[in-house]
Amino acid sequence: MQHGGNITRYQAEWGWRREDLADFSANLNPLGPPHSVMQAIREALSAIADYPDPHGNRVLSALAAEWHLPENRFLLGNGAAELIFLAMRLLRPKTIATLAPAFREYEQAARLEGAEILRIPLRAENGFLPEADQILPVLAKADLLVLANPNNPTGRCVPPDTLGELLQATKKTGTWMLVDEAFLDFLPDDEKRSLIPHIDSHHKLIVIRSLTKFYSIPGIRIGYLAAAGHLIKRLRQLQVPWSVNSLAQAAAVAALSDEGFRLKTLEWLAIERQYLMEQLVSRGYEVVPSDANFLLVWRPDIDIEQLWPQLAGKGLFVRDCRSFAGLDGTYFRIAIRSREENERLLWALP
Amino acid sequence: MQHGGNITRYQAEWGWRREDLADFSANLNPLGPPHSVMQAIREALSAIADYPDPHGNRVLSALAAEWHLPENRFLLGNGAAELIFLAMRLLRPKTIATLAPAFREYEQAARLEGAEILRIPLRAENGFLPEADQILPVLAKADLLVLANPNNPTGRCVPPDTLGELLQATKKTGTWMLVDEAFLDFLPDDEKRSLIPHIDSHHKLIVIRSLTKFYSIPGIRIGYLAAAGHLIKRLRQLQVPWSVNSLAQAAAVAALSDEGFRLKTLEWLAIERQYLMEQLVSRGYEVVPSDANFLLVWRPDIDIEQLWPQLAGKGLFVRDCRSFAGLDGTYFRIAIRSREENERLLWALP
Repeated sequence: MQHGGNITRYQAEWGWRREDLADFSANLNPLGPPHSVMQAIREALSAIADYPDPHGNRVLSALAAEWHLPENRFLLGNGAAELIFLAMRLLRPKTIATLAPAFREYEQAARLEGAEILRIPLRAENGFLPEADQILPVLAKADLLVLANPNNPTGRCVPPDTLGELLQATKKTGTWMLVDEAFLDFLPDDEKRSLIPHIDSHHKLIVIRSLTKFYSIPGIRIGYLAAAGHLIKRLRQLQVPWSVNSLAQAAAVAALSDEGFRLKTLEWLAIERQYLMEQLVSRGYEVVPSDANFLLVWRPDIDIEQLWPQLAGKGLFVRDCRSFAGLDGTYFRIAIRSREENERLLWALP
Repeated sequence: MQHGGNITRYQAEWGWRREDLADFSANLNPLGPPHSVMQAIREALSAIADYPDPHGNRVLSALAAEWHLPENRFLLGNGAAELIFLAMRLLRPKTIATLAPAFREYEQAARLEGAEILRIPLRAENGFLPEADQILPVLAKADLLVLANPNNPTGRCVPPDTLGELLQATKKTGTWMLVDEAFLDFLPDDEKRSLIPHIDSHHKLIVIRSLTKFYSIPGIRIGYLAAAGHLIKRLRQLQVPWSVNSLAQAAAVAALSDEGFRLKTLEWLAIERQYLMEQLVSRGYEVVPSDANFLLVWRPDIDIEQLWPQLAGKGLFVRDCRSFAGLDGTYFRIAIRSREENERLLWALP
């Protein structure tokens, strides 16, 4: 399985020191980690000789306050990845419907449960926008619809109207809905777009969130899942005890209350995304209009097999997209980073 | 599921400050965490904005050197608990044989895969020593034999002869063997007793180890599994990506090379276990002769429902053993701690 962000490999195979390479292959916020989070982790080091709080009650309180929902609607995970696998394990779907391209872990986790995959191809000519007309007919054939909002690697959100239609339709067909909102906190209207407020009215809805992308703490793993109380209870029975380490728990509490960092990130992203898109377009690239902190980039003459090592030789690591269903070597994905790093990439791109 | 070591609960329900309570309910080394490990974790904080090395190659190298085996015989886990669940998931046994009493996660993990449990009752009158005569007849009925060496909560090792017999017998019957050596590093002849050197000659043998007990880092979760290369490959496909956080990886590398801490611990344990056992016996308790860093204690007049809150009121937390199959409220388990804490407990015990 080929992922972005494999810094260890980049260093070992290309001989770069960490401070000299720029990693565009992992979709992390370059402004993070926030000081508040690092401070909380440092303080939590003194409790490392104790077992983690099994359910992470302090984090659950913070989430309950954030979403105005009871604590028992949330489950913490060892990264969002654990929660994707756990949800598949609970649902054991016979058939899942998923968008293509999308994050590959949905299919990997579903296959482990023996599920068949129905891929709904997103159309490049339509900017990879998910359309209700494409998705609705598939619902009758699938036990579970998996969506990412925004989607990865395209960066595009599901339009609110489409999302509303899908919520209604899955209620009628009895199809489960798993919505991955790992990058939704990069949107200023995150709370309005999230499906978390719907978990009590749609008992077959599971929403998964990550805290590692926005707060740049992928090294310690933390994500959460929101769903109806009876689902959380069943998921908890499937989860490995002490799955979420205590530093991750401390980091999450600090992150959720750092409003300053959130605003600073949204401000940075609006400016930098616009800048990077314009610069890429002016160099003849097509860029999918992204709602997130990363860009899917295309040009017909790109051959990633040549471009990737060429950039790696300059300490620049982008995401080869050939492992995403429906994309080929003319695409690559880049995280939006600091102005300095973005310019370094622009300078190096053909 | 009721575990020891729930410090959050002890503090919330009993009002103790962390520094004023003594936790005998979790089997952790009171000498830890070692300075070397804390230092390694502090240094690793600077890389928290990167994804963890997916396979933990630096730890695998250290393990390969420690055990004189190739790196591909090892798999890291988010605590030993994840590896127990993962092994069960790979094997999907129809029937498992396990000792009673034993760590409850074996049964929990096996039940998730739909397994039936055959419990082999250990005899109190025989000091809870596992006997080949009891185990051998069960092998024909089980797909998987689960052993802990030493066993928890009894602290007793499987005698080497018995272990040898079981290795031979399971090879003949084709029964899988899962051996949990979470506490074996507390024995001076650890390497001689471990079954890790047998993984290449017994392809149905899986050995699980923890680093959190000996090095007192349960807060960050790290364990490892040793088995034949083809098994490691299959287990890896089942494992959630980035399961082991980067601080845990850094801690493991430092821990495995800290020979000074290891020797200091073994020295402390030999003295303190002897002292605590003698003191308990002189107060009329029966103590199971333990090879590990914890003691299973019994007196016919003990009623844990009364004793537990009585001790908790004094800031002393022991392990209620009623959740272990085959034990009742006349038993409790205690970790061996510092002389000062052990005396505090002895003073408080009836």
